Amino acid sequence: MSAPPASTGQPTRPCMVGIFLFDGFELLDVCGPAQVLGVVSNRFQIRWPGPEIGPVRSAIAQADGPLIEAQDVWETSERLSVVLLGGGRGTRTGVNDERLLAALRRQAAGTELIASVCTGSALLAKAGLLDGKRATSNKLAFKWVVTQGPKTQRVPQARWVLDGNVLTSGGVAAGIDMAVALLAHFHGEELARRIATGIEYAWDPFAKAAGLV
Amino acid sequence: MSAPPASTGQPTRPCMVGIFLFDGFELLDVCGPAQVLGVVSNRFQIRWPGPEIGPVRSAIAQADGPLIEAQDVWETSERLSVVLLGGGRGTRTGVNDERLLAALRRQAAGTELIASVCTGSALLAKAGLLDGKRATSNKLAFKWVVTQGPKTQRVPQARWVLDGNVLTSGGVAAGIDMAVALLAHFHGEELARRIATGIEYAWDPFAKAAGLV
Repeated sequence: MSAPPASTGQPTRPCMVGIFLFDGFELLDVCGPAQVLGVVSNRFQIRWPGPEIGPVRSAIAQADGPLIEAQDVWETSERLSVVLLGGGRGTRTGVNDERLLAALRRQAAGTELIASVCTGSALLAKAGLLDGKRATSNKLAFKWVVTQGPKTQRVPQARWVLDGNVLTSGGVAAGIDMAVALLAHFHGEELARRIATGIEYAWDPFAKAAGLV
Repeated sequence: MSAPPASTGQPTRPCMVGIFLFDGFELLDVCGPAQVLGVVSNRFQIRWPGPEIGPVRSAIAQADGPLIEAQDVWETSERLSVVLLGGGRGTRTGVNDERLLAALRRQAAGTELIASVCTGSALLAKAGLLDGKRATSNKLAFKWVVTQGPKTQRVPQARWVLDGNVLTSGGVAAGIDMAVALLAHFHGEELARRIATGIEYAWDPFAKAAGLV
């Protein structure tokens, strides 16, 4: 209703996307991309792995909510084509969570694409997944993120960067632009623009012009 | 971390915001505004009322998620300063849900502001809360929304509209702009712009220039 129906021109098996939840994840970092990909349900199927099955508290949670339910654990045996990580204050402890980092490394070995929004890049960096890669991150926390992965080739001014199978974006709302780029990467720019228009989002046209996708 | 700390210059009691959940709500419609207001936690406290306490399924939910937990029921006795409604396919049945409409009418009588994103405006219209008011809505579903409230003065081209105590926005991502405007309405444009910058969101400068807020 609020987005146009997805193209059904090319019947394909939906791409399995896992959006990793952890305590203190930034809500919009994950819900922006989930919205962009979720409306193209014949192309993408979204799973929400967490530290355990059950509600996970977001970074903006105060007394109670919001809580998003994790359906799988990080070490899920399910094969994911795309792994997506948000940022948020939970990344400050996440960079020392060996269980999370190991799960990311194992998934990264088999995925088509591993993506981060905002300080989610710190988790990828600490897991060694950005070594030698061009990548970007949240602008305000950039200095801290850099310390997590000194072998990363940082592109601080980018809204998003795709290098090989690693896709990283700037802070929070930049994840929406990145998700539209992800859609363009897999299914072409026409569909990507149609979905962005459907959710009334002005997809950053400059990043593409700069050859960043 | 991903947003600047909120100003602590004016200690005030946080404004109680209730984001109404219903089956088939659009995820980004509610998570965009929640992110904008949630990072200013000394100014806004967010509650998530639903049809009952427990997980509520979003419009993009497929086999499983995402689910957001409702903490209260719509008829909560708690006084809300701001009521916010998203759209989504759930509004198609929501316009005939007398329990939901009655809860909205009762809250509207005591709130400082009642706000909708996307086709959430259809619920406000059907509840009679847009009668005689200037309001906007999702662009693609505009015709349907109009049928729910023929006494509304529609402003289809607006990204958001404030008329008295009613604030309405365009589709999905327009709710982020509206939430920044809500922040500006209560706490001034300087804080609003700072929060928008912190989440790396380009707040639509044209709507303000057109005198719509």
